[in-house]
Amino acid sequence: MTAGPAEDTRTRLLQTALRLFTEHGVEGTSLQMIADALGITKAAVYYHFKTKAEITEAVAEPGVRDLDELVLRAAAQKRRGAQVDLLLEGFIDLVIRHRALVALFSSDPGLIRAIEKSAHGGMEGFGQALLAILAGPDPDATARVNAMVTLTGIAMAGGSPDLAGLSDDELRTELLDVGRRLLGRPRRRTSAPVAVGRNG
Amino acid sequence: MTAGPAEDTRTRLLQTALRLFTEHGVEGTSLQMIADALGITKAAVYYHFKTKAEITEAVAEPGVRDLDELVLRAAAQKRRGAQVDLLLEGFIDLVIRHRALVALFSSDPGLIRAIEKSAHGGMEGFGQALLAILAGPDPDATARVNAMVTLTGIAMAGGSPDLAGLSDDELRTELLDVGRRLLGRPRRRTSAPVAVGRNG
Repeated sequence: MTAGPAEDTRTRLLQTALRLFTEHGVEGTSLQMIADALGITKAAVYYHFKTKAEITEAVAEPGVRDLDELVLRAAAQKRRGAQVDLLLEGFIDLVIRHRALVALFSSDPGLIRAIEKSAHGGMEGFGQALLAILAGPDPDATARVNAMVTLTGIAMAGGSPDLAGLSDDELRTELLDVGRRLLGRPRRRTSAPVAVGRNG
Repeated sequence: MTAGPAEDTRTRLLQTALRLFTEHGVEGTSLQMIADALGITKAAVYYHFKTKAEITEAVAEPGVRDLDELVLRAAAQKRRGAQVDLLLEGFIDLVIRHRALVALFSSDPGLIRAIEKSAHGGMEGFGQALLAILAGPDPDATARVNAMVTLTGIAMAGGSPDLAGLSDDELRTELLDVGRRLLGRPRRRTSAPVAVGRNG
């Protein structure tokens, strides 16, 4: 395998790292394993990243950035219904766009620990911000449990190997339906052009 | 701290191990740390367990046994509605009875790896059995996603530090309501003696 331009190597390095993290866990993956899988030297890995922690952060970075933007966009909505709809749909899109990363997140605390140390107060800060928007102001037990089950259930289902056979579109439709039901939002038909039923 | 009878020491050892696993993860906890926290020697730990893997299995054993019994009881029901009801209510009771263990399960793959190696085909076998009952025979994408979101959402919410302030009864009521809604089961009022509303 010949090395392309530096930017290509970086991209391939992060893709390879995500695959190895998925197979062996973050803590079970070494810089040497990443170098070997790419057919490059460990020195070539060091050219891009000094530590595994830097690689881990870079692997998670696109998902973290999308989540950050989503929370800001949702919080900027005036009406509460619009906040919930935007957050729910955006979260499902994000889970589907980053399925491999989400699967890793839900199974590997090594990744979560790496993110905890990064900017934005870590994943706990994000989780709190997402829950606060979904549960609404002064949430009672019902609102808190519904918000928690919605977020964790969607993330776990999105990353589950048991549902890996579903296409992105199928998964999106099903998760939206479940999420809207859990949060008491009126039903939407995203796959059909005409609204045929509403409940809620 | 004086050592009580062997059985008491074993019980205290498992309680202490669960607490340390929760704080440091299974992989971040050593036999020495467990001995130190109990104020006993490492030799006294060895009297009960030869390896950390044995301790991990013993910590998870009550939850695994309850889950095993639950799957058998649910599968023995004749009607599908009774299977789903028994499994959902039993699963929620189990999650609440073992809140600390469930929290550890959902955050630590070290525990899951330990169980994978134990009897019953490991947690994956259990997960498949639970999903198969909840999703029903020949499940479509909707049934599979609903079953997955129900199981993972309930387990994650049950173990979540964000909901640790809810009492067992509050959590049970809320999780049952969410689960029955997700699975399309008629609503039940477990906390009130008279059924005041039904939907679903």
